[in-house]
Amino acid sequence: HHVRSPRPGAPGRRPPRRARQARPARRRRRPLFYKPLQALDRGEQELAFYTAFSAHPDVPPRIRDAFFPRFHGTRLLPTAASPGESHPHLILDDLLKGLAAPSVTDIKIGACTWPPRAPEPYVAKCLAKDRGSTSVLLGFRVSGVMVSDPSGAVWRPDRSELKGTDIPGVRRMLRRYVSSAGGDGGGEDCALAAAVYGGEGGVLAQLRELKAWFEVQTLFHFYSASILLSYDANAVTAPGGAPRVKLVDFAHVVESEGVIDHNFLGGLCSLIKFIDDIVSSDKAPPAQS
Amino acid sequence: HHVRSPRPGAPGRRPPRRARQARPARRRRRPLFYKPLQALDRGEQELAFYTAFSAHPDVPPRIRDAFFPRFHGTRLLPTAASPGESHPHLILDDLLKGLAAPSVTDIKIGACTWPPRAPEPYVAKCLAKDRGSTSVLLGFRVSGVMVSDPSGAVWRPDRSELKGTDIPGVRRMLRRYVSSAGGDGGGEDCALAAAVYGGEGGVLAQLRELKAWFEVQTLFHFYSASILLSYDANAVTAPGGAPRVKLVDFAHVVESEGVIDHNFLGGLCSLIKFIDDIVSSDKAPPAQS
Repeated sequence: HHVRSPRPGAPGRRPPRRARQARPARRRRRPLFYKPLQALDRGEQELAFYTAFSAHPDVPPRIRDAFFPRFHGTRLLPTAASPGESHPHLILDDLLKGLAAPSVTDIKIGACTWPPRAPEPYVAKCLAKDRGSTSVLLGFRVSGVMVSDPSGAVWRPDRSELKGTDIPGVRRMLRRYVSSAGGDGGGEDCALAAAVYGGEGGVLAQLRELKAWFEVQTLFHFYSASILLSYDANAVTAPGGAPRVKLVDFAHVVESEGVIDHNFLGGLCSLIKFIDDIVSSDKAPPAQS
Repeated sequence: HHVRSPRPGAPGRRPPRRARQARPARRRRRPLFYKPLQALDRGEQELAFYTAFSAHPDVPPRIRDAFFPRFHGTRLLPTAASPGESHPHLILDDLLKGLAAPSVTDIKIGACTWPPRAPEPYVAKCLAKDRGSTSVLLGFRVSGVMVSDPSGAVWRPDRSELKGTDIPGVRRMLRRYVSSAGGDGGGEDCALAAAVYGGEGGVLAQLRELKAWFEVQTLFHFYSASILLSYDANAVTAPGGAPRVKLVDFAHVVESEGVIDHNFLGGLCSLIKFIDDIVSSDKAPPAQS
């Protein structure tokens, strides 16, 4: 169930097999996600963020509970890459728990993915990626998509296809994410747009709640973080089947210096407009002939 | 009455002396601003924007009238630099007309001032300026300030002082802009904050109206444009003395490709938060001792 297409050595959204085996049996009913600390200082920075964020008195509990994975500390575990050694892992809620047929989209938010005070070679590398993808134009880019079908079919574009996506491609991707047909021949009927994106507990309503917080929060700037959308293709209209909207990937979060995260907020507003357009065009009556 | 500190050859907000002399007498009661077309293709681009914007059926009239200078075509006039030759000028409303003691702030909006599809040397130059100023950190930078006092005193920081301003410096500048004391010894009492920034027709209310449009408009992306704030220090509380909020400088406006201007919107939200903080702290009762 990796959302992002496999890349050698890249951290996944799910624990490596070894880590899963190490999970105690009593935890089975509340699945956890063991994320290996990333290389360089990224892992430490992500840990520092989770530690600060979890205890911060100015974070509204509703925001923390609704939009962030719960953090349960760290744990030394072997990884798939070096089974003989122990490596620190973040223990987080598994954001996809309970989804029988998960449909997931990973959207990296912000025109700019580099913290302004980051060192030069890193900035240049990020900037090239931001300009080479839709980030600068759109304020976000799609980093991963997986669309499941109740029949069990899964559609997942590969990494190179995502990388080359332009603005119309992102629009297609976000339409396809809520279309009924899985599998390679899938279309863009947007049959699930109203249920997943629209409505009271839908993605759009959740994104707007998040936006209201970003208009005022001056605690953190979330460079290079993603919004992870997910829903169960088997239970879209079931009670408790509301789509999930979560922030993930906090290796480049920095303090805000008293300023709102205008970069994340701008990208979030752009995403909201894109999704709103899909819901609205879905609702519109067919053109008269 | 130049808002920006003088720079050789730079276009001003006011017509050069020659252009003013050329203004027909009957126009005196509705002062106009003759802006010489800028060098390179900037002047042509700004003219193209004004032409497209003025006639665009999807621009709400209320937005056009409230937040943009009215465009009256072009005119060949001599300039101060070459009095013997004719040079095309944009004919615009004079945004400072009728202000006896104008207090003006020019705020360049957006973390990024370069259109994403601009050629490389230009991008590198802008990016260096964006990173060297508060643009990347704050989502905007202050490009000019002039604070007038009813007594006739004027405070205007010079260009180099503005260039070196950091985040606390911007906060001080925005506080000073609504403080009563003009002149060099001026303080930051924020005596005019409620009247200029707050209230029904205040800057904050106008910026929020502008923001609502930017959340949905997919017509133009306003790279490197400014918001020009102005009020009459002699008539802050007079009828019709509402502060003015106008967009200016459209040489780098580009088409939107169906995407909202997340870069401008993010910076605008950041500015709103900064100004809201000043109004709120001004309203707050003094701390108990």
